[in-house]
Amino acid sequence: NHYIVCGYGRMGKIICRELRGKNIKFVVIEKKLDAFEERGDMLILEGDATRDEILREAGIERAKGLISVLPTDAENLFVVLSARELKPDLFIVARAGEEGSEQKLMRAGADRVVSPYHIGGLRIAHTVLKPAVVDFIEFATKSGNIDLQMEEITVQEESKLTGLTLDECGIGRELGIIIVAIKKHTGDMRFNPTFRTAIKAGDTLIALGEVSKLKILEDMAGVKR
Amino acid sequence: NHYIVCGYGRMGKIICRELRGKNIKFVVIEKKLDAFEERGDMLILEGDATRDEILREAGIERAKGLISVLPTDAENLFVVLSARELKPDLFIVARAGEEGSEQKLMRAGADRVVSPYHIGGLRIAHTVLKPAVVDFIEFATKSGNIDLQMEEITVQEESKLTGLTLDECGIGRELGIIIVAIKKHTGDMRFNPTFRTAIKAGDTLIALGEVSKLKILEDMAGVKR
Ligand SMILES: [Ca+2]
Ligand SMILES: [Ca+2]
Repeated sequence: NHYIVCGYGRMGKIICRELRGKNIKFVVIEKKLDAFEERGDMLILEGDATRDEILREAGIERAKGLISVLPTDAENLFVVLSARELKPDLFIVARAGEEGSEQKLMRAGADRVVSPYHIGGLRIAHTVLKPAVVDFIEFATKSGNIDLQMEEITVQEESKLTGLTLDECGIGRELGIIIVAIKKHTGDMRFNPTFRTAIKAGDTLIALGEVSKLKILEDMAGVKR
Repeated sequence: NHYIVCGYGRMGKIICRELRGKNIKFVVIEKKLDAFEERGDMLILEGDATRDEILREAGIERAKGLISVLPTDAENLFVVLSARELKPDLFIVARAGEEGSEQKLMRAGADRVVSPYHIGGLRIAHTVLKPAVVDFIEFATKSGNIDLQMEEITVQEESKLTGLTLDECGIGRELGIIIVAIKKHTGDMRFNPTFRTAIKAGDTLIALGEVSKLKILEDMAGVKR
C-alpha cells in the first residue's frame, strides 16, 4: 500500500518532500545515489526503473501507485508500459516533456500525465490574466497554511452527515467552511452546491476552510486517521 | 498597454494561445521565425530579446507587462535586468529552470517567477494526495468551461454593490456564485467571507460560478468591457 517514485531529479525531489510531509509511504528508485543530498528516512532503491526486476524489488505488486519522473519521455513511457503490465490496477502518473508525449503516455497506460511546460505556461498566462485567482489557488493548495486549505473529504457510510442538507449540518454557519463542489461516487463533479443539497455516503466534499475546522468536518464525515 | 512575450518555445506557445483567447494585445520576440507553425494575427518581432534595441522596438516603454520564457535561465535573467532598467514599473514574469534561479530572477527585478519543474512536481504530488481537489482546480481554471470558472472581479467606485453585504446583494442566492475570498485594495487576502461581509469599492472578489452569472456580477460591479 505504498507509492513508487521513479527518478529523484528536480521534480522527484519536490514530490518526495510533499509525500513525506503527509506521511505517505513510498520508495524512490534512482540510478545515481549522489542525487540524494540527504536521505533522511527515505526508502531508496539504487537502480534503473526501466528494468522489471527493480520494479518488483520496489514491491510493485503490493503498491498503490507509481510516479514516473525520469529525465526522458522514452524512459517514462517504458516504465509506464512495464508497470501497467506488472500490475493492471496500479494508479500511474507520469511526466511528459515533449509535445505529443502526453497522448503516448496515456495510451501506454498512465492514469494521469503532467506536462510541466504545459502547466507552467498556463500558470504564467493566468498570472497575467487572473493574478488574484492565482494568488488564491497557490495559497489554498500550499501545504502549511493553517488559515486556508482546500481539502477533499469523503463522507463515510456511518457518518452523521449522511442525509442532511448542507444547511442542516452547519458546515458553513458553524465551521465557516465553504463546499465548492461535491464529487459523487460515480466520479461526477457537482459544482456550486446550494444550501438544499443533500449529503450522501460516498460523496467527496471539496471543502475550503481553516485547517482546524476541516479536521472537525473530517471527524463528522467519519474519516479515519 | 500591451504585453511582450520573449520566446516562442513550448511555454511561449501556450502563453500566446491563452492571451489570444482573452483578446489581450501582445507582441512576441523570437529568434527563429520557423518556430511559428501559424502566425495567425500575432504580432511577431524577429530578433534577440536580450538586446535593448529589440525590447524598444517591441514598445517596452508603452508596455504593461513582459513575459520572459527564453530557453535558458541566463537569457531570462538578462532580459529581466534589461526590462527593469528600461521600464521601472513594468510587470515582469519570468520562467526559472534550475534550482536557485528563482531567487536570482527576483533579485534582478521580476515580479513573479514560475518554475515549471516546481509546479509540475507539486501538481503530481497533489494528484496522489488530493485527486478530487486537482480535478476541481483544473476544471475551474481551464478557459472554455461555461459551467464553472474562477474569476476575479474588482468592484468599481460607482458600483451598486458598494456598501452592501454579501447577503444583501444576492450573489449567492440569486446568481449561485460563491465568493471564496476578497482581495482588498491593499493586497490583503480575506478568506471565507461570511454573509455579513460588506463589499467596498476597490475590493477584488474571487468568485466561483457559471460564466453567464459571472458576467452579470461583473456588470453589477461596474466592470467595463
Ligand atoms: Ca525528476
Ligand atoms: Ca518558451
